[in-house]
Amino acid sequence: MNPRPVLGITMGDPAGIGPELCLRALSEPLVLGQCVPIVFGDAAVLKRLTSCGLPALTCEVVDLAAWKSMPQPSKPMVVDCATLDASKIIPGTISAECGRAGYVYIEESINSALRGQIAGVVTAPIHKEALHLSGIRHPGHTEIFTALTHAKRSCMMLRSEPITVSMVTTHIGYHEVPGKLSIQRVCDVIELTAEAMQSILGRIPKIAVCGLNPHAGENGLFGNREEECFIGPAVERTKANGLNVAGPFPPDAIFTPNQRKKFDAIVTLYHDQGHIPFKMLAFETGVNVTLGLPIIRTSVDHGTAFDIAWKGIADPLSLYEAIRVAVELAAGKARKTANP
Amino acid sequence: MNPRPVLGITMGDPAGIGPELCLRALSEPLVLGQCVPIVFGDAAVLKRLTSCGLPALTCEVVDLAAWKSMPQPSKPMVVDCATLDASKIIPGTISAECGRAGYVYIEESINSALRGQIAGVVTAPIHKEALHLSGIRHPGHTEIFTALTHAKRSCMMLRSEPITVSMVTTHIGYHEVPGKLSIQRVCDVIELTAEAMQSILGRIPKIAVCGLNPHAGENGLFGNREEECFIGPAVERTKANGLNVAGPFPPDAIFTPNQRKKFDAIVTLYHDQGHIPFKMLAFETGVNVTLGLPIIRTSVDHGTAFDIAWKGIADPLSLYEAIRVAVELAAGKARKTANP
Repeated sequence: MNPRPVLGITMGDPAGIGPELCLRALSEPLVLGQCVPIVFGDAAVLKRLTSCGLPALTCEVVDLAAWKSMPQPSKPMVVDCATLDASKIIPGTISAECGRAGYVYIEESINSALRGQIAGVVTAPIHKEALHLSGIRHPGHTEIFTALTHAKRSCMMLRSEPITVSMVTTHIGYHEVPGKLSIQRVCDVIELTAEAMQSILGRIPKIAVCGLNPHAGENGLFGNREEECFIGPAVERTKANGLNVAGPFPPDAIFTPNQRKKFDAIVTLYHDQGHIPFKMLAFETGVNVTLGLPIIRTSVDHGTAFDIAWKGIADPLSLYEAIRVAVELAAGKARKTANP
Repeated sequence: MNPRPVLGITMGDPAGIGPELCLRALSEPLVLGQCVPIVFGDAAVLKRLTSCGLPALTCEVVDLAAWKSMPQPSKPMVVDCATLDASKIIPGTISAECGRAGYVYIEESINSALRGQIAGVVTAPIHKEALHLSGIRHPGHTEIFTALTHAKRSCMMLRSEPITVSMVTTHIGYHEVPGKLSIQRVCDVIELTAEAMQSILGRIPKIAVCGLNPHAGENGLFGNREEECFIGPAVERTKANGLNVAGPFPPDAIFTPNQRKKFDAIVTLYHDQGHIPFKMLAFETGVNVTLGLPIIRTSVDHGTAFDIAWKGIADPLSLYEAIRVAVELAAGKARKTANP
């Protein structure tokens, strides 16, 4: 009997496919049946885009000041952050202005969630280089959400029907990964993953953990014994605390069809260890979830797709999936609040 | 009108599934129709195994001395290396004796190929820890073949119908990979891959090359610019030399169904970057090929499977595939010799 949750949707980089995905979501019955979508973006950009064969912008548009003084809304809305001159945007190009705009939408949506005005945030894609050009030093969404919500620990999880993976490290160079491993960090990611999957599945989930080295080090033959020093002990500690967790597994074995189906989620140690298998199995329907935040945050699992931006041909499926998972998580949170 | 090539098949670790796979191959019409199989192993082990419901050993058995003085054989045969006491083997356990035996089979098969007695070698699995226990310092087959054939450059390629990947580095720790990258090494692997695929396909192949860092470094945002310093320049140099090669691609994008099917092979930089996607798509039918050797060498793409060893239930499909690819490569070599 939960009412539909109110979800913020950020517009992403204005020069990418985010704006058109938002326009579609605002008039999609599937979305409107599940939640009340509130788009954080630039109304002028959305209006300029409706000339590209996209649905017209028919919902209410409010400015930031009006939004902040509103009670929780019950119908779709655009919160106009008015960050840039829409006529100057060149679709499909990297710019500091668009990078900055994408950041403002995120910031305003996070503040709204922390105030309790919205139940969570679903993000459209930003461009990491544009973000960087605008002077923002966070490499991506996960890091921005972690910083702005003052989360003590967080991690990225990619969720789909065929496979769910979470990551101990994400947007750092290949060579930096071993230095970021610790028993505590691996435990954190195992615990966050187990908690999220429990919320989604409504039962104790089975979690697998990858090794770092080829063959999970083959008992110390390859690597610096990261399996023995960090990963194995983290598995043992979380298991002792009652979680259903196993590993470290050889990374190339755990993703084979027979192995991966034994687990509800697989904890990986670096970006591509998780992203390669995930995108192979769930390229169109993947959802990126940030775990460990005081608010719900999900995201599309694709980039700004500058090559097809503003053409009205971008597929909104991943955004709808991200909204669906946010609704699932909001329901899990509501259950937990009702029966702590 | 090529006669069937004579192929050596090593028995692998005697305590693993290699011996039973060899017994099956020796009596499999599919195998006998394509090649003349010569098994390098211990005849006493094969004989002890026939009590496990496997085909009887009906072909000729010769000792090493007799083998070395023989002309090229025209019928299946076991070359008895007589390395150990078969009655003492405990199936499914790691031992220095079995590690050493597996090495001797490899050594004898390589020498036979270098002498021209056999056209190439197909290897059954060895156990890396058993090999290490026996005092051999090479981490695996690829390195042994490279050393014993004095190959100037070599690399591992995994071949299957849905996907083919080759690797710039293989059995080393995760942290060692960046230090092993150089323009020359990446060029070598691109060239070896292109040469092998040309031999297999009979046309100029399309090759993709992965980046090392998340998003292929996103123009230097992540990592130590390995894409700009090593990988990109190697792609440019091999392209300038007439190869059809592209990259570096974001590692998580190139393996998605739409991307990977644009290429005949994908060059990866480390073990799991190639093995994770390969084993997901070709777990049962993968073939491991060592490129750059003066002899042909292919291998099964699975381990010793100690948990099911000597039970007669191991699936020989991957060995048959490895034999098929070796026959393909022998035919390509014969074509090249005939029309240089």
